[in-house]
Amino acid sequence: MKLQPLFDRVLLEPKKAEESKGGILLPSVAQDKSQIAKVVAVGEGGTADGKDVKMLVKVGDEVLYSKYAGVEIEDGDKKYVVVRQSDILAIIK
Amino acid sequence: MKLQPLFDRVLLEPKKAEESKGGILLPSVAQDKSQIAKVVAVGEGGTADGKDVKMLVKVGDEVLYSKYAGVEIEDGDKKYVVVRQSDILAIIK
Amino acid sequence: MKLQPLFDRVLLEPKKAEESKGGILLPSVAQDKSQIAKVVAVGEGGTADGKDVKMLVKVGDEVLYSKYAGVEIEDGDKKYVVVRQSDILAIIK
Amino acid sequence: MKLQPLFDRVLLEPKKAEESKGGILLPSVAQDKSQIAKVVAVGEGGTADGKDVKMLVKVGDEVLYSKYAGVEIEDGDKKYVVVRQSDILAIIK
Amino acid sequence: MKLQPLFDRVLLEPKKAEESKGGILLPSVAQDKSQIAKVVAVGEGGTADGKDVKMLVKVGDEVLYSKYAGVEIEDGDKKYVVVRQSDILAIIK
Amino acid sequence: MKLQPLFDRVLLEPKKAEESKGGILLPSVAQDKSQIAKVVAVGEGGTADGKDVKMLVKVGDEVLYSKYAGVEIEDGDKKYVVVRQSDILAIIK
Amino acid sequence: MKLQPLFDRVLLEPKKAEESKGGILLPSVAQDKSQIAKVVAVGEGGTADGKDVKMLVKVGDEVLYSKYAGVEIEDGDKKYVVVRQSDILAIIK
Repeated sequence: MKLQPLFDRVLLEPKKAEESKGGILLPSVAQDKSQIAKVVAVGEGGTADGKDVKMLVKVGDEVLYSKYAGVEIEDGDKKYVVVRQSDILAIIK
Repeated sequence: MKLQPLFDRVLLEPKKAEESKGGILLPSVAQDKSQIAKVVAVGEGGTADGKDVKMLVKVGDEVLYSKYAGVEIEDGDKKYVVVRQSDILAIIK
Repeated sequence: MKLQPLFDRVLLEPKKAEESKGGILLPSVAQDKSQIAKVVAVGEGGTADGKDVKMLVKVGDEVLYSKYAGVEIEDGDKKYVVVRQSDILAIIK
Repeated sequence: MKLQPLFDRVLLEPKKAEESKGGILLPSVAQDKSQIAKVVAVGEGGTADGKDVKMLVKVGDEVLYSKYAGVEIEDGDKKYVVVRQSDILAIIK
Repeated sequence: MKLQPLFDRVLLEPKKAEESKGGILLPSVAQDKSQIAKVVAVGEGGTADGKDVKMLVKVGDEVLYSKYAGVEIEDGDKKYVVVRQSDILAIIK
Repeated sequence: MKLQPLFDRVLLEPKKAEESKGGILLPSVAQDKSQIAKVVAVGEGGTADGKDVKMLVKVGDEVLYSKYAGVEIEDGDKKYVVVRQSDILAIIK
Repeated sequence: MKLQPLFDRVLLEPKKAEESKGGILLPSVAQDKSQIAKVVAVGEGGTADGKDVKMLVKVGDEVLYSKYAGVEIEDGDKKYVVVRQSDILAIIK
């Protein structure tokens, strides 16, 4: 992996709606206030202001996250988002 | 269950007013600042910024929650809401 | 009781001014920034973000609370308010 | 006493300027951002969000408090104010 | 002394510029964002929300404080200011 | 090194997009809300308000940081940015 | 020294750009959001709301600080600034 997020940050690769693992949650999520993504890299936990936070998500997890959170970055034609774990609502099992 | 909420988040399935278990609290609640829902999934507790919070609600509980809280998601024709436990006002017994 | 408030929340039944137990505090309170209510249900204490708060009010107490606080709910023709204990100013003895 | 303030709240009876015990601080205080009052009832301390605060004022104290703080209540022709102890600036000796 | 400030509050008697002990810091200070005052009374420390703060200033100290901080009070023709110790920038030696 | 950042501050030398070590993340990053930089100096950790924060970045690291964070400084024709570690999103490996 | 800053405050004497010790960082710094100053007096540490902060700067240090921070004071024709240590970005070695 090229990017190592710091503290409680997580690198996400947003998924197109039709790629969602369980085949659920698709239309509304994609247009609304949340989005589905795959976890690509995970920080070591804690926060940048010294709080003790453990990481609950791991690489490969499919997650639901707040749409307006994070910073988008691009690698050629791929798009990623760096969010804090607090912007992740749930893991899609 | 398909979604595992993180930390103190809770997955709710909002109920139509007439489905309320006790048959109470119906009209005003449905139009006002709170709503009734069934708890569908519950996070493990704690918060995303490291606070120690235990979960008081459990799957199957019927709860009253703040209407404007949370993020709505859809699964086909079903609608869910992901809220933080702090947005749940009371358990309906 | 039908509703079990969470954490430091309290279920109140607002009183009409003339019902006040001690016969005091009536006119200004009812119009101003505070109101009188009877405590109908009490949470177990603590807060939804992990603070340690004990409950000082109990079921049956008559209290003075901040008028604009809380969420109103209805049960048929009865009206209740769910507030946090921090919105209760004083117990009327 | 009819009202038992919760936590760090204090019930004050504002004084007319000419009633001030020491005969001091009168004109500007009464018109400006602070006011003089007599302490009528005192909470047990602590705060509604779990902080540990001891009460420094006691019933009978004459105090200087922030004019715009608190909630006014009336008992017939008497007026009281419920403030938090943090709104009290000083005790008048 | 007539006023006993609570917690980390301090009673100051603002000085006219020409009265400054060291004869320094005069013109700009008096017109700008800070002012010189003599400490007249000091609270016992701590804060109204339970923080542990020790008092570094003592009665008689000449201090530089934030001009827009505090509450002004009058005693006849004398003017005082009640500030929190956090509004005091420095002690003038 | 000429500048020793305090606490959790970090001195960064922003990189032109084409200089990025891994050859990735270039176009969007450079125009968007994040930027790439080389770490030139690192504070000792902790924060200016007493929080305990360890430094995860070290001199020589290439990092992704929030574009609008920090204070820009110049040394002749060289430009640097002083940011807090919390403004660094990830280390580029 | 005439002024003893309280807690984490620091008395700075801003330097004209050409006086900078290392001969660096001059033009942009002087016009931008940061400035160079010499440390003239240092508080004992801690903060006015009870946080534990140690002082990292000492008298004689040349520092880079946030331009818009602090309170300016004058002593005749000399100008000083009182800032909190958190407004100091780095020590110039």
